[in-house]
Parts: sequence; structure tokens; C-alpha cells
Amino acid sequence: MAAPAKPMMKLNLFINPTGHHQAAWRHPDAQPDAGVNLDHYVALAQLAEAAKIDAIFLADNQSVRHGDPEAVGRVAQYVANFEPLTLLSALSAVTSRIGLIATASTTFNFPYQVARKFASLDHLSHGRAGWNIVTSSSTNREEENFGGTAIAHADRYERASEFVEICRGLWDSWDDDAFPRDRQTGIFSDMNKLHVLDHQGPHFSVRGPLNVPRCPQGYPVHVQAGASDAGRDFAARYAEMIFVTPQSLSLAQAQYADMKARAAGAGRDPTHVKILPGLAPVVGRTEAEAREKFEQLQSLLTLPVALNILSMRMGGLDISGFDLDQPFPESARQTTGSRSGLEAMVERSRRENLTVRQLALKTAGSLAGLSVHGSAAEIVDMMEEWFVGGACDGFNLQPAVLPGTFKDIVELVLPELRRRGLFRTEYEGHTLRENLGLPRPASRYAA
Amino acid sequence: MAAPAKPMMKLNLFINPTGHHQAAWRHPDAQPDAGVNLDHYVALAQLAEAAKIDAIFLADNQSVRHGDPEAVGRVAQYVANFEPLTLLSALSAVTSRIGLIATASTTFNFPYQVARKFASLDHLSHGRAGWNIVTSSSTNREEENFGGTAIAHADRYERASEFVEICRGLWDSWDDDAFPRDRQTGIFSDMNKLHVLDHQGPHFSVRGPLNVPRCPQGYPVHVQAGASDAGRDFAARYAEMIFVTPQSLSLAQAQYADMKARAAGAGRDPTHVKILPGLAPVVGRTEAEAREKFEQLQSLLTLPVALNILSMRMGGLDISGFDLDQPFPESARQTTGSRSGLEAMVERSRRENLTVRQLALKTAGSLAGLSVHGSAAEIVDMMEEWFVGGACDGFNLQPAVLPGTFKDIVELVLPELRRRGLFRTEYEGHTLRENLGLPRPASRYAA
Repeated sequence: MAAPAKPMMKLNLFINPTGHHQAAWRHPDAQPDAGVNLDHYVALAQLAEAAKIDAIFLADNQSVRHGDPEAVGRVAQYVANFEPLTLLSALSAVTSRIGLIATASTTFNFPYQVARKFASLDHLSHGRAGWNIVTSSSTNREEENFGGTAIAHADRYERASEFVEICRGLWDSWDDDAFPRDRQTGIFSDMNKLHVLDHQGPHFSVRGPLNVPRCPQGYPVHVQAGASDAGRDFAARYAEMIFVTPQSLSLAQAQYADMKARAAGAGRDPTHVKILPGLAPVVGRTEAEAREKFEQLQSLLTLPVALNILSMRMGGLDISGFDLDQPFPESARQTTGSRSGLEAMVERSRRENLTVRQLALKTAGSLAGLSVHGSAAEIVDMMEEWFVGGACDGFNLQPAVLPGTFKDIVELVLPELRRRGLFRTEYEGHTLRENLGLPRPASRYAA
Repeated sequence: MAAPAKPMMKLNLFINPTGHHQAAWRHPDAQPDAGVNLDHYVALAQLAEAAKIDAIFLADNQSVRHGDPEAVGRVAQYVANFEPLTLLSALSAVTSRIGLIATASTTFNFPYQVARKFASLDHLSHGRAGWNIVTSSSTNREEENFGGTAIAHADRYERASEFVEICRGLWDSWDDDAFPRDRQTGIFSDMNKLHVLDHQGPHFSVRGPLNVPRCPQGYPVHVQAGASDAGRDFAARYAEMIFVTPQSLSLAQAQYADMKARAAGAGRDPTHVKILPGLAPVVGRTEAEAREKFEQLQSLLTLPVALNILSMRMGGLDISGFDLDQPFPESARQTTGSRSGLEAMVERSRRENLTVRQLALKTAGSLAGLSVHGSAAEIVDMMEEWFVGGACDGFNLQPAVLPGTFKDIVELVLPELRRRGLFRTEYEGHTLRENLGLPRPASRYAA
């Protein structure tokens, strides 16, 4: 009998159109018009699929980035791009194995539409859809495009829970075998296998049923990234893949243990929750080459851009009055908005003893994920240390420049991971759940 | 100098997954699982593109069809299918010239999302998106999936106008040349070419700007199908392609003249409004063969299905108490809901002196469009008579069985149309607007 297979890393490719570095679009290895260039995404998705990456992932805002026009006019991210679900639907037709994860907000959406679109994507892709569930932060002022009413931070996760429960109920509208489509008897659908949700809750009233058959995956894979306490509890209940952004091994281990314990506490099998820290590797043939690449990128950044990004990452905090050459003021903690970003930044400024200017440039040099620069062996050393050290189940790759840095990862990092038996050489299955080792959820109506 | 080109028909393919005949899915030339079968749609779209059809079109409901379960369980339409915008996005990646028209409701949607998704589809397809603007009828009880509140018939078009104006404003958010993406200067977007809509109206409050660059087509092509007086006025103001369903040449001529006059009255060039009657041809090598094909389809229909369809087409009218062997009762006119369907049905029952049963079976035998059965020459005779007789600018093809009947149309009808110089042999342009002969709208902010 063969030894049980050694666990392997799960790797997700987080695509920011031109790359995660804020100046990436100026780099020769980037595609400056990536945001509305389908060919760019097709090539990336097909490259990632050939490399056996678990999934590609698209973040989302339902607004144009806010801030100093001097900064906003110099960045490519969250300005004007494809809408994620239409883009991933297009990619579903030209890929066959890679997962397709889109972000959709539970604050500025109708549950019926979210349930329907992700079910549709799961059918289009034969079981490769994932939903990154976000509650929308006030940073992006999305509410101004949706009637003007902001929803209080505290209410957002309560609303999100109701939203997700509705979606799951809608996804169970039809049993898996509800469609005999029998030409002889004339029975197309078995109406005894149709269920009306009839949800009446504090935030939503949704009758159902959903007008899409049950998904190949049962439900699309649930992805989440909130790091606040409420966000972690929400993730423990629902998320099957969690994107986290710890900035050190010990923080990652603590967060990993905490999330697995919370999942168990919520009555779930912790192995069905895959925790992927963000990783923004800049890889060179040598460490010196990697550093040089990164410095080249940093040289393309301007201060207004860096300050805008810092503000965004701190939940839209107004930092225009802060002394750039002093540490971060303690008073900054007293604010609303996306808490997790704010806490992470304040924590970093304390830990690394950075002035506001230094923090801004460092922050702008990566996007949430841990930045590592080195040779493939050095980067894989770090990845292996985290993986075997109980800090993660894999990584959420955030290449600095696209397609350039991802090509480097495929050509240099993945072969080294495979040499060490840490990453697959072939997909295990056909659906995203199968590749992630996640069970297919049964319908609530299953006997 | 060459003579000016003779005007040619515009042809749209209206795809109902298994075909427009309500029993189509039982026919051997249908694909019973078409509703969630991407390969089926890819093959159809590529066949239509090879045949130089202007566009494919998907209708939509945001609900599962209502009615007698005995009937609903025996039909394939409006039960459980792909969501149109995700499906057309997938098709955008595997086609290059054919237009892609999706339905989206102005009643159960956010304008920002509709503007964004159609802009994204227009970019994905390099200028091939069309929006079929519907206000949603009460027939489908969509409101039950969107909070439970129905919107009165009278208010729907007023709301729709505001919705469309917001979308147009959002589509003008960025000037056509707003993105220099200049690596040297570091200017990605020219913020002087960004416009904030700041809309505050009776139904919506939407700040903007839209987070998608201006569309290749400026705006996606506006399509409309409302036949009530309010619907016609709305179409006259906004629609560039109008789907109509007259049941005779004289009615078609009257409606054509009326719509062109209304468009002119709204200050528009009437040639920029393409009027396409629905046409459901069953074509055989001979008339007898065509009739036999149609009778075969009719034999697959059951009475509960036919009555359900009749009820749906009459705005959800409860017809369960009517005597099946009597003419339609005059009292049926006193109802709310989708007026145009009701009026058309009552009109037909009077004109053709049909009992309720006969009307039900006849109605179920086509879907809104004019049913014609005959040889290719006979069908093209009728099409030519309408086209040269001032009754239409082309047709909205509603094949009875898919893919079967559409293959017949491509193989038999289109060659005959081309022989007579009535249909193109090559696309005139690359965008849907170019192929339809529609101008690209300038931004409201253009000098």
C-alpha cells in the first residue's frame, strides 16, 4: 500500500491587472492597458493553468478609487477595469481546470443576483467558481453609487451572514437530480425536487427558488479575507479559503492556529479551511538580481501615490496633516472603516520603527501581502518554513508585475517547490473543490 | 461611381435555450440540457457568426417561471438556465464579430451595476454589446426575489428613463482619450478627462464615476421590445433596435410607421432605429415537409403547457376558470400586468375566431414571433415582402428548435436571401454598431 500523499501547498494567483506593485504598470514587464485587455487575462489564466495553480482571483471595488487626483491619475489599480464576474465568465470559456474566484459585496448587491451569477459561473466553468465574500469598506465610498446610504461597520457582518445563508438556500433550490429532461415522458424538471426558500429576515426578503440548476460544486467555494474579530468569526463559519496578510512567521502561525480553532469551534473540520497568506515575491536568479528588480520598481513610485495607498490601506484615513518624518500618531487608531488594514499598518509602523513617509513607500511597494525578494531557493525556503511550520496551507501569490513577475514565479519558483515535493505536477481533480481537497456540500434537502 | 449599396436586412438570433417552440426540448434536433450547456451556446454563436448574423440575443427573467407545476415541469424555458451576462461574456471570448445582446431589467437592478457590466462586456467583446432594456412585468413575480415590493406598471417606464439616463451618464465618466498610460511621465489617467455624474433623481441617487473606461461603442446598443404606448414612447427616445411582434403585414407596416414617426418626433434620425419583427420560421425543402415538421412539434405539446404559456403571454392572467371551448371572454381585458401581451392575445383570438383551447395551442406553437412554415423560397418571399414593403428593417429570428431549426435557416433561408441581395455576405464592420449602421454616440462632454 502506498504511503499517504504528503500534503501539498495550495497556490492562488491574485491578479491585479498590471501587477501588485503600485508602479508596476510603468515597468517594461507589465501590460499597461491590462485592465481592459482580454488577451492579457487569457494569457495569464492559461499560463497559470499550465502551471497547475489552484485558482485565479480578482478583487473588486464598485467605485473609482478616491483620493488626491495627483495620486489617482498615476495608478492603474481600482480605477477603470473589467468587472470581475464578466471577465471570469469570459475566461471560463478558454480554460478548463483552473479555479475562478471573483469578489462580490454583500453590502451593495441583491442576494438573488449574486447567487445566480456565481451559480452561472460554476456551470459555465464545470465547477470552478469561487466567491470572495466582502462586506465593502467605507474607504471606497461605494455607497455613493448605491443610493448614498452607508451601512455601519458593526452591521456589515450580520448582514453578510444573512446574505450568505440566503445564497446557500437559493443554491439548494433544485436537487442535484431535479432535471430528468426525459423526452419520452415529457418531464423536463421534477417539481418535487424544487424547493422554495421563502426567506424573511432583518435585512432581506427573498422568496426563491433560484432559476439556475444546482451548481456542479453544490456551492461555489467560499473565500474570505476579513481580519477583524467579526471578520474572523464570519470566516470561521463560512470560509473554505481564507486570504490573510500576516507580516511575519510568528504572526502567521498565531493567525493560522486562531482560524483553525475558530473553525473547529464553529463545528467545522479545520482541514476544510485553507489559509493562504499573501505573498509578493520578487524573484531573481540571485538575491542581488531580485533586489535590483525591486529597487527598479520602487524608483517608479512617487510620494503622492505612496501616501494615497497608505491612506487606502488604512481605511481611507486622512493622513494629509501628519508629519511625514515622524512615526505614525497613536490617534490614528481612533477611526471607523476597515479596521484590519488600519491595525496592520499601525502595527507595522511600530514594529519596524518607520516614519509615515517610510511606511508609505514600503506599503506602496507591496499590496498587503508579505514582500520577499531573493533567489528561487531563498523564496522557497521561506515558503517551506511557513508551510511545514503550521503557518499556512499554501499562498496567495501577488506578483509585483504582470505578466513579468508571474512568469518568473512559474519558471523559477514552481520547479523548486516541485523538486521538494511541495506543489502538484498535475491537478487532482476537475473542480476547484476537488483540487483544494474540499468536500462538495450536500443540499439541505438531501435525505 | 458605384451605385449606392442596396439596403440589406438586419438579422438577430433570439436564443431560447432549446428553441422557441415550447415542446422543442423533446424534439430530436434539440439539445435538452441547453440551458446550462456552454458547448451548445458556443456552437450556436459560432454558427451564427459564420453566417454573418448581426447579433445573438438572450431574454431574461429573474425568477423561476410560475404556474401549474404540471405545466412548469414540462417546459425548458425560463426555468433554470445560465444568467445572460455571464453567458454572453463567456461567448465573447470565443467569437469575434457577432453582436451580444443581453436583457437587464431597470426595475430589479442597480444602475451602477448594469452600466458597469455592459461596459465590461463591450470591452471584452471589442464593441459588440447590446442591452435589451426591460422594465420587468408582474407576470414573473420577480419582486418576490427582490424584497417583495412590486412597482406599479405606470411608474416602470418613468423609472426606466431615469435608469437609462444614469447609465449613459456613467458611460461618459471617462473621455475616450482619458488614459494616456504614459510610462515615461507616469500619467496613467488624465484626471481632467474624468467626469462625476452626481445624479440625484426621484428613483436613484448615483454619484459615479464609473470604474470602466468609455466603451468601444460609446454606449452599448440600446434594444427594446415594449409595445404598450408608454413602451413605444420609451423606445422612440432610446432604442436603436426594436423587437416587435406584429401578426400580419398590415399591422407590421402600421407599427413600423408609428415607431419611425415617434423616433423622429423625439428628435432622432429614424434610420438609427432598426425595427425587427419576431419571425419563427419552420423551413422544409417543400411546404409539406415544413408543415410536417411543425405538426411533429405540436404533437409534443400537452394542454397544461399550452394553457400556462397562454397565461404567461397574457401577463400571468388566471385563465383556469375559462371555458376552453369558448372564445376568449371580454372581461379578460380588465387586468393589470403586461398590457402588450394581453392585447395581442385578445386581438388574435378575435381575429382568428379561436377558442381558448385553440388559442393556447396556437400560442404555445410559437413564442410571440410570427410563425411561418414553408420552403425557403416561400419564407424569403414573405421576408422580402415585409422588408421592401416598409414593415421592417430585418427580423428577429426565433427558431422553433435549437440548434436544428437554426441550421435549417442557415442552410436554406440565408442562401436564398443572399441570392436576392437581401442579406450580407460579410460583416461591414467590427462593432455591433458598425454592422447595424448605427453611429457611435459622442460623450456629452465632447467639445
